[in-house]
Amino acid sequence: MYEKTVPIPPEDFVRVEWTSLKRYIAEIFYALGTPHDEAEIAADVLVTADLMGIESHGVQRLKRYTMGIRIGSVRPKATISIVKETPTTVLIDGGASLGQIVAYRAMEIAIKKAKSSGVAIVGVRNSHHFGIAGYYALQAIRRNMIGIVATNSEPLMSYTYTVGRNIGTNPIAIGFPTKTPPPILFDASTSIVPIGRIEVYAKQNRRIPLGWALSPEGSLTDDPRDVLVRGGSLLPLGGFGEEFGGHKGSGLALAIDILCGVLTGANYGVLVKHTTAKEPANVGHFIMAIDIDRISSLDFFLEKIEEYKKYIKSLKKVSENVEIWLPGEKAWLTMETRKKIGVPIHKNILKEIKEEGERLGIKFGVEIIKEIA
Amino acid sequence: MYEKTVPIPPEDFVRVEWTSLKRYIAEIFYALGTPHDEAEIAADVLVTADLMGIESHGVQRLKRYTMGIRIGSVRPKATISIVKETPTTVLIDGGASLGQIVAYRAMEIAIKKAKSSGVAIVGVRNSHHFGIAGYYALQAIRRNMIGIVATNSEPLMSYTYTVGRNIGTNPIAIGFPTKTPPPILFDASTSIVPIGRIEVYAKQNRRIPLGWALSPEGSLTDDPRDVLVRGGSLLPLGGFGEEFGGHKGSGLALAIDILCGVLTGANYGVLVKHTTAKEPANVGHFIMAIDIDRISSLDFFLEKIEEYKKYIKSLKKVSENVEIWLPGEKAWLTMETRKKIGVPIHKNILKEIKEEGERLGIKFGVEIIKEIA
Repeated sequence: MYEKTVPIPPEDFVRVEWTSLKRYIAEIFYALGTPHDEAEIAADVLVTADLMGIESHGVQRLKRYTMGIRIGSVRPKATISIVKETPTTVLIDGGASLGQIVAYRAMEIAIKKAKSSGVAIVGVRNSHHFGIAGYYALQAIRRNMIGIVATNSEPLMSYTYTVGRNIGTNPIAIGFPTKTPPPILFDASTSIVPIGRIEVYAKQNRRIPLGWALSPEGSLTDDPRDVLVRGGSLLPLGGFGEEFGGHKGSGLALAIDILCGVLTGANYGVLVKHTTAKEPANVGHFIMAIDIDRISSLDFFLEKIEEYKKYIKSLKKVSENVEIWLPGEKAWLTMETRKKIGVPIHKNILKEIKEEGERLGIKFGVEIIKEIA
Repeated sequence: MYEKTVPIPPEDFVRVEWTSLKRYIAEIFYALGTPHDEAEIAADVLVTADLMGIESHGVQRLKRYTMGIRIGSVRPKATISIVKETPTTVLIDGGASLGQIVAYRAMEIAIKKAKSSGVAIVGVRNSHHFGIAGYYALQAIRRNMIGIVATNSEPLMSYTYTVGRNIGTNPIAIGFPTKTPPPILFDASTSIVPIGRIEVYAKQNRRIPLGWALSPEGSLTDDPRDVLVRGGSLLPLGGFGEEFGGHKGSGLALAIDILCGVLTGANYGVLVKHTTAKEPANVGHFIMAIDIDRISSLDFFLEKIEEYKKYIKSLKKVSENVEIWLPGEKAWLTMETRKKIGVPIHKNILKEIKEEGERLGIKFGVEIIKEIA
């Protein structure tokens, strides 16, 4: 019964039954104007993050989206238009709709095109924050395709040798189907840690490791408030400067900003807005599906990737106290665990989503399994 | 007159005229059985690395390839066969030929297919070490396409929480054309540093920064001999363990190993051989071209990417002593400089390639511009 993240301190959390949580979140979106099927997608993206132990992108982010809808920058239902289309490519205008729905639809289009053409790319402009990138790669995985999903995001990171929040943490997910679960699902932001990790340290009143973030003045800081309160920035994967490869993390973030922002005509860098800003965020996505059967053969691939998984798992551990993990494995196991024992939700978050429902006249249908402490 | 890497110590180097160097290297390949046009490609890949200040992949590697040809594991001329082909995808068997020629041809095929289909992927198995990944992305850039190139490589790195050399430093290049040079060319291995950087420290009798590498026993080491003599390993981008994101560097290396090795039927992990091993290395490549004009519009993209370059360049510097660099910019400027003032070649390397020519009865035609010291 593995869990990637264990609720700390336990007495602040309850465990809830995941399908009831999903249903409730979907009802909130529905009440805000999202059609039923789309509300279910948006809710599924959020709850899947909680199931996978990526709480930073889970229902604690609900408020961000509902605020965006209330302010008017986020359109609750997908009004997607196709700007350009060829047999292998599509450019979509997301109509400032909920990013989850736009990205879901974009990947469905990519999969359909890849099914007929072998490879397909869907570029998206005028979307919003879409939650976890891996969710959309999983859509391709379920069809035995390779899914590649990237997005830019509001600026939280400093490009190498600069100071201030000037580029997104621009994540990329690369997903591969496997014969037996879990699939291989690489899903990583291009910063060392997401802002959510800094928030966790702040809540626990702990110092952050030196090297994760910069103060607004451009010094390395171990004080989470320098980032969260004073507007400091995250550092790219590889860290400050070039000695440990920070230019590689920055360079990858920049390449993703070009694929998602420049190529599609979306915003980039500081121009990408937060979901709760007055103007639409104009986030861009780059979504791709590859039909394995066109390149080699699906059967061959599925045999060989199991062999590869075994290879990685059989490597010599650096010490007896560690485990070797495949990309996405921890998240997958956590999901299986939490489907059984419930999703841990912080009591404050539970209160927040309850109030959100009350405002909309929705009965609080989230089934609490137990207090954790 | 910018140079990314300055020869240290200068008295050990000479500067040579680059076209004469390229011609001479091409003659060596030709003498070993590579046809004229292919010999020129292979030589151009090596000399371009030297021009760009990526000496670790330059003519100092010549011996690796000539040894491979002599041993018989590397076929000097390209005997490429198409295993599978669709309008958007090709799977190639490189016939254990020189990796440079195989990758060059693969990208030409990708470009041609992308020109007609919009997007194309060429998977390659049974190839060899191909030098700098960025070279092949530049082929796409010259046709105003986006080029994405990845390869796996012989194991030099430790996957997160493991010890020993068990996964390649699997580089990826992503190249974008621009209206004015330099193009944007992200080209990075998934380790913190390449093995060549450790060799430079060893030659200069310096300690390496703690965090770059592991000893064969799995301890962080600052002694380059632990890696070079005792068989230690490089650490992935993000470093040891997960605290600074080492699992992201490892995960990306693994995803590339799957795209290049598992998907194509090439080798992976420890199975990938060195160029000078008795058996063919069976390196795999993943090569992709995207026709920008199919997704948005080339004119639009070229305008917007110049705007993006300006945006990055105008960011606030973290201190007055640093420069903000675009991916590939340093390499490009170094190339321009070295085309004018000559390519610095270590005297030992010059001796080595001279002897190589003598063995083959080739007149040493490399024009030495000057002693540096």
